[in-house]
Amino acid sequence: MSPKTVEFYFDFGSPASYLAWTQLPGLCAQAGAELAYRPMLLGGVFQATGNHSPATIPAKGHYTFVDFDRFARRYGVPLQRNPHFPINTLTLMRGAAGLQMREPARFLPYCDAVFRAIWVEAKNLNEPAAVAGVLQAAGFDPAALLALTQDAEVKERLKAATQEAIDRGVFGAPTFFVGAQMFWGQDRLDFVKEALQTS
Amino acid sequence: MSPKTVEFYFDFGSPASYLAWTQLPGLCAQAGAELAYRPMLLGGVFQATGNHSPATIPAKGHYTFVDFDRFARRYGVPLQRNPHFPINTLTLMRGAAGLQMREPARFLPYCDAVFRAIWVEAKNLNEPAAVAGVLQAAGFDPAALLALTQDAEVKERLKAATQEAIDRGVFGAPTFFVGAQMFWGQDRLDFVKEALQTS
Repeated sequence: MSPKTVEFYFDFGSPASYLAWTQLPGLCAQAGAELAYRPMLLGGVFQATGNHSPATIPAKGHYTFVDFDRFARRYGVPLQRNPHFPINTLTLMRGAAGLQMREPARFLPYCDAVFRAIWVEAKNLNEPAAVAGVLQAAGFDPAALLALTQDAEVKERLKAATQEAIDRGVFGAPTFFVGAQMFWGQDRLDFVKEALQTS
Repeated sequence: MSPKTVEFYFDFGSPASYLAWTQLPGLCAQAGAELAYRPMLLGGVFQATGNHSPATIPAKGHYTFVDFDRFARRYGVPLQRNPHFPINTLTLMRGAAGLQMREPARFLPYCDAVFRAIWVEAKNLNEPAAVAGVLQAAGFDPAALLALTQDAEVKERLKAATQEAIDRGVFGAPTFFVGAQMFWGQDRLDFVKEALQTS
């Protein structure tokens, strides 16, 4: 790994991961840093750590979206509250892990399509038909991608990445590492930037 | 209330409230805004909303203090992890509510003494003797202050302030209001500043 790398642990189901996703490429380019994408299963992280979505506390869940809207305006990026939240992202995250392993050139277009479908177009990706539609529109073969998500090595890869995250202290998404320094939340990107400047 | 006011809901037991406490007077002075202190009982807020301290999730509790340390360095203020955390702040918060009612001129020196004792000197303010020592050193009569915290009107005042916070959507501390806009967390002071500029 390059001495200047941001590791980005994310899950499509997390609106804060989406916001970070929109900002990290520019931030890393400006800092001359590499961006290492680390798809993980947030549900697995929650289960292992005892943490849970802020949405489980009604007052907090409501506020969280007010807060994300403020950041979206600050960043100048689109964001829609998804009425189908929370979305079960197991298959979607397996797709990300599988493409990263087997077709790395298609990893970013896939992530972009999925993030946008959930957090810009507010689609219900709990429905396989909606997922297939999004994939097709983005130039993927839904059947081939579904097969990839059923591949034992791909399943294992996502499981291992999630466990690695937990072992490193991750309890939520997004989480960034600059070397051994961990930063949680899209609202800590300024600290990530500082860490790159001093690393 | 002046058109430019920051309402600051806080509890002494919250390290993030302490950090906000160190920054708000400067922020408000610069913005020409009034700072309205709103002592509340965070334990009551947690009970009513179902929210809880990040410390209840070990990985999150650990990280939270790493994060607070980073902000303390950024702000240039002292912060110590208090080994006696969490501290039962019921009596301490009643003291704040009572002084605000009965001896407003002594409210800020009291808050300063209590915040510093917990988050700079890492004292165990679960122990009445330690509280008495801190109060005495700050020029208060511990017995008189204890009597104030047993005053029915003072108890009621803290209870009402806490309920008002809950009714306004508060689920954690610190929480700020600029008019109807709510901001949660000492890490949102930059948004508070922006809200003052545009209000």
